[in-house]
Amino acid sequence: MTGSDAGRPVTMRDVAAAAGVSVATVSHVVNDKPGARIGPETRRRVQAAVADLGYRPNAMAQNLVRGGSKFIGLVADAIATTPFAGQIIHGAQDEAWRHGYVLLVANTEGNDAAEKEALAMMLEHKVRGVIYSTWYHRRVELPPTLTESDHVLVNCFATDPGVRAVIPDEIGGGRTAAQLAIDAGHRRIGFVNTTTASPARDGRLIGYRDALKAAGLPVDERLIMDTRPDQEGGYAVVPALLERGVTAVCCHNDRVAMGVYDGLRERGVGVPDDLAVIGFDNQEVIAAHLRPPLSTVALPHYELGAAGVRVLLGLDDTAVTGIVSIPCPPVRRASA
Amino acid sequence: MTGSDAGRPVTMRDVAAAAGVSVATVSHVVNDKPGARIGPETRRRVQAAVADLGYRPNAMAQNLVRGGSKFIGLVADAIATTPFAGQIIHGAQDEAWRHGYVLLVANTEGNDAAEKEALAMMLEHKVRGVIYSTWYHRRVELPPTLTESDHVLVNCFATDPGVRAVIPDEIGGGRTAAQLAIDAGHRRIGFVNTTTASPARDGRLIGYRDALKAAGLPVDERLIMDTRPDQEGGYAVVPALLERGVTAVCCHNDRVAMGVYDGLRERGVGVPDDLAVIGFDNQEVIAAHLRPPLSTVALPHYELGAAGVRVLLGLDDTAVTGIVSIPCPPVRRASA
Repeated sequence: MTGSDAGRPVTMRDVAAAAGVSVATVSHVVNDKPGARIGPETRRRVQAAVADLGYRPNAMAQNLVRGGSKFIGLVADAIATTPFAGQIIHGAQDEAWRHGYVLLVANTEGNDAAEKEALAMMLEHKVRGVIYSTWYHRRVELPPTLTESDHVLVNCFATDPGVRAVIPDEIGGGRTAAQLAIDAGHRRIGFVNTTTASPARDGRLIGYRDALKAAGLPVDERLIMDTRPDQEGGYAVVPALLERGVTAVCCHNDRVAMGVYDGLRERGVGVPDDLAVIGFDNQEVIAAHLRPPLSTVALPHYELGAAGVRVLLGLDDTAVTGIVSIPCPPVRRASA
Repeated sequence: MTGSDAGRPVTMRDVAAAAGVSVATVSHVVNDKPGARIGPETRRRVQAAVADLGYRPNAMAQNLVRGGSKFIGLVADAIATTPFAGQIIHGAQDEAWRHGYVLLVANTEGNDAAEKEALAMMLEHKVRGVIYSTWYHRRVELPPTLTESDHVLVNCFATDPGVRAVIPDEIGGGRTAAQLAIDAGHRRIGFVNTTTASPARDGRLIGYRDALKAAGLPVDERLIMDTRPDQEGGYAVVPALLERGVTAVCCHNDRVAMGVYDGLRERGVGVPDDLAVIGFDNQEVIAAHLRPPLSTVALPHYELGAAGVRVLLGLDDTAVTGIVSIPCPPVRRASA
């Protein structure tokens, strides 16, 4: 019913017959074997027969002949919950394909047994290396199996010396968020941080302070507050924001900003005229579709994935620390 | 810096030496070669040495020996834009691993060249078959290369005869959405459909009509309206909903429901007391975090992916049509 329309698959023997050469010659040309003495005319004839017949070489056999696979493993911990992991995979795949590699993607949803199985599968397929990624930026313990292969961490890092990692520049991102408010003329800018300890929590706050200082504005500690990093947390913090008289607020993420919008709307406070709101993450389904559309700072997931592959293949250098830091660009919409 | 901590990899020769057998015997045990006469005691000794030394067989070599790969290809068109494709991959991976297969995932982001490259890559790896999936339910033209391999469509379908496809039960989902309102005692139930032609548009409307009829309620055509399938569309339809005096509304998706919430809030209309709102999709980041949390109908992406693999492997039967339909379950929260 649904099998091949093409009938019997084309074999190397068919190519050899069509080109009038031996199967060994076809194999040498197809596998691009170094040291094989084959004239340009013969090579051309084989290549023409390959194209004419639609012969597809067996990639697994080629890998064995060449002595190395063209796989890169990618472990992701949450492709089913957020679009973030998908963006990392998208970037990693584009970069891998560009260099002739295929991604072996494994999703673990944070499950240790699935992670172990994923890494074992990748080692059995003799991957060139493994990209180990998390959906939010954090410190990780290296799984022991991971160190059996070449590896690069993406959107996470380890404290073990020399482990290469590609992470978002949280400090720069915090600075960019505050700068969006400063550029719009604000001087009393609130900062709604998360209650959850994380590199994002620490880094973005440093960036916020830096930006205010660089603009000659005082840092008023009462304008810095913590809340749950979701819509409910944003909604809950609105009374404090209004009481402290901020004219702009940088939120820990777009979900918090969405909750702030709800709280402000209930009180008849307009965005951005009464209060400018700035998000973080650029989570498309939220940020682009709030009323008004949310000005925010993008997490560079695509670029994290692409850079991870480049670092693994030795195409990008890392700093002495092993860390590559990727900028978080501003996304200007209508809320600030 | 980041290479193997384990030193030289363990080879089949090491295993043979430790077990006191020949390399050929190790190969037969490891590759589980049919017809090889190896005593149970020898087999046990080899397996013990494999475990002791941490030997990892070369999966690619095993595939060549066995004459078939343990790969299933999965083409997805939008893993970077929504979490939907990620959920399909999650379900497909769990089911593939359960049966000893590894997924080769390729993301195309709707790009024809990337799709062609993805399918060629899968054919070169001699996949057992290909799962071809889309992020929203729609009819597709079969890419010619897809038919060179065994294939199952997931979240999409083709009109070519006999092509197997696993799709969500849109009619049942529409019925379930309306039933949530009926169960809460409503009799004047609006239906906000999308302006975009799609199986979701047609199917859910049929289900809505069915549910009303089954409950003995009249179907008032003026309560059925079309809008853009996003927050902006939901916001725009609010005046019509209020003017027509509905007490509950089934929205085309959660994003439309989110826009309806905004429009109602601006007019001081409370959810669910003044107007009950029901979504569709169960897009977690929106549905679970609106104020109040949104009652909705879930799209069964995980189950679509899992069922796709089962159909490909011949474990699940399809109807004569080749179509497997997966239910869309209700998710009761606080908006209806």
